[in-house]
Amino acid sequence: VNVSDIGEFGLIERLAKAADAERPESLIVGIGDDAAAWRAGDAVVLATTDTLVEGVHFLPGRTPWADLGWKALAVNVSDIAAMGGEPQYALVTLALPPQTPVQAVDQLYEGLLECAREYGVTVAGGDVVRAPQIAITVALLGRADFGAEGSPRLMRRDAARAGYAVAVTGTLGGSAAGLRRLKEGAPPDDPLARAHLRPRPPLALARKAAGAGVPCAIDVSDGLLQDLGHVCEASGLGAAVRAAAVPLSDELRDAYPDDALALACAGGEDYELLLVAALETLEALGTAVTVIGEMMESAERRVRLLDASGEEVRLPAAGWDHLKA
Amino acid sequence: VNVSDIGEFGLIERLAKAADAERPESLIVGIGDDAAAWRAGDAVVLATTDTLVEGVHFLPGRTPWADLGWKALAVNVSDIAAMGGEPQYALVTLALPPQTPVQAVDQLYEGLLECAREYGVTVAGGDVVRAPQIAITVALLGRADFGAEGSPRLMRRDAARAGYAVAVTGTLGGSAAGLRRLKEGAPPDDPLARAHLRPRPPLALARKAAGAGVPCAIDVSDGLLQDLGHVCEASGLGAAVRAAAVPLSDELRDAYPDDALALACAGGEDYELLLVAALETLEALGTAVTVIGEMMESAERRVRLLDASGEEVRLPAAGWDHLKA
Repeated sequence: VNVSDIGEFGLIERLAKAADAERPESLIVGIGDDAAAWRAGDAVVLATTDTLVEGVHFLPGRTPWADLGWKALAVNVSDIAAMGGEPQYALVTLALPPQTPVQAVDQLYEGLLECAREYGVTVAGGDVVRAPQIAITVALLGRADFGAEGSPRLMRRDAARAGYAVAVTGTLGGSAAGLRRLKEGAPPDDPLARAHLRPRPPLALARKAAGAGVPCAIDVSDGLLQDLGHVCEASGLGAAVRAAAVPLSDELRDAYPDDALALACAGGEDYELLLVAALETLEALGTAVTVIGEMMESAERRVRLLDASGEEVRLPAAGWDHLKA
Repeated sequence: VNVSDIGEFGLIERLAKAADAERPESLIVGIGDDAAAWRAGDAVVLATTDTLVEGVHFLPGRTPWADLGWKALAVNVSDIAAMGGEPQYALVTLALPPQTPVQAVDQLYEGLLECAREYGVTVAGGDVVRAPQIAITVALLGRADFGAEGSPRLMRRDAARAGYAVAVTGTLGGSAAGLRRLKEGAPPDDPLARAHLRPRPPLALARKAAGAGVPCAIDVSDGLLQDLGHVCEASGLGAAVRAAAVPLSDELRDAYPDDALALACAGGEDYELLLVAALETLEALGTAVTVIGEMMESAERRVRLLDASGEEVRLPAAGWDHLKA
């Protein structure tokens, strides 16, 4: 049996099971959410890590270095945002072939530090190693607030309840469409390409949502349906999403009218947020979030995408698994 | 100019310069020490990260998976120990080719969790990504104590003073000798090979040293002379090491009598600790540490290795840089 047979999520589950045997009391959230959380003195520390590998997560030679640096940090900011936390410190590991131009690394740092300034992150350390291809790993640390009742105010995947509404920030599908456009030869300043190369996690809105008491969130990294599926599994519920409610940008509709919905539901890498809470809690967040469905009791623990007549819509692609073919 | 021209340390310095422009008050130690440190509420958080890449840091096909998992965590424990801190939580990123056997990953986790138990570390999260070759990145978080005067009790590279003695824990050169033996075809249970495959950072001794007021330490990862050279640069001093005082194991002397000193001084990956403090402070730590030299005012800020007559000994290899050829 190879890792491609059990996939990314199967592997993570195996590690989670092995590691869970010795869970200390100070650990609040372990493996299986957007970020881990633990108590340190009177603070809650959040920690997450994400890697971009050349040829797997970005196109060699067609991704501007500064954009790569930005994205390597931004995808981690997205994880901290999805927990309702505040990102603070980053450790940056660069794996580089020895023949990489120094100028390229300078540009990469520049984009990464631009993102760090944007989100209030300090680069506090890291590592540089030799490797046959480029990879950037960022470990991002942050903090979470305590609520009035003294418990940490975290948005968790396992905190959805039947009857809660499901909302999403921004528009979806732009990143996958941008990747397609880049592959078709579009320049990096194409508006859809920007969505792919420079994701902008809605951190301020995430902090507002956590402060308003939204108990459950996940970032849209693997694709709307798959990420909401993670919430279903963690919370032991099913979900229904109204296809017509999924927010699409005009650029996406214009560029790929036939595939817009599929790109929005299964494309991934939007780094927007799925928020799950009582409808009035989500509505109080204003027009920045769009309600697209709801959670319900269900033996299946999966997401159904519904058309206007309530029939289930079948999409060609199911989502993104980093190890499966 | 390629990264191989300026090397690992040149690259890290470039990032440090760019990142240092916006250093918040809560940051205690940034880029350039064994681990970063910052205040979080009433706690001091320590953070470090290290990567092992197939073919660069370990021999493909000749490194048992469990040993690889152990070492991936142990090298990070070594960094936290070198700061005088207590390791607590790890994020583990596995980069894997899709055809990797699941059994191999299980064994890797097993070795990693064995090391985690040994050092009281909880694996709290991580990431799994596809890549053309295997790489393991661990980000390790920990904590440090406060001293009586309310400042964090950290052992830093920049805290050496002229007249301080230099000591080292354990024996040196075993890891480099073990790597040579593995390349010569020795089995993984060869005693020197064990030193290479299963380094055991002296965490308890490091905690004791920090508690006893040792102000300055670094782990021996790149090689004794190079690592002590980092202390010289950071502290603005020179150092002298008595070659005859460098502790060598009997296995090392027996296996490579002619190269034992060179392996101990420049081999690297021993994951022992260099401790720099007043002589009586080091002597109070007992027989577990060996005094090998001292720090001094010097315009050169480098390490001199001296023979019995005080003449400088020249070694063939100068140390280890991950990017230089």
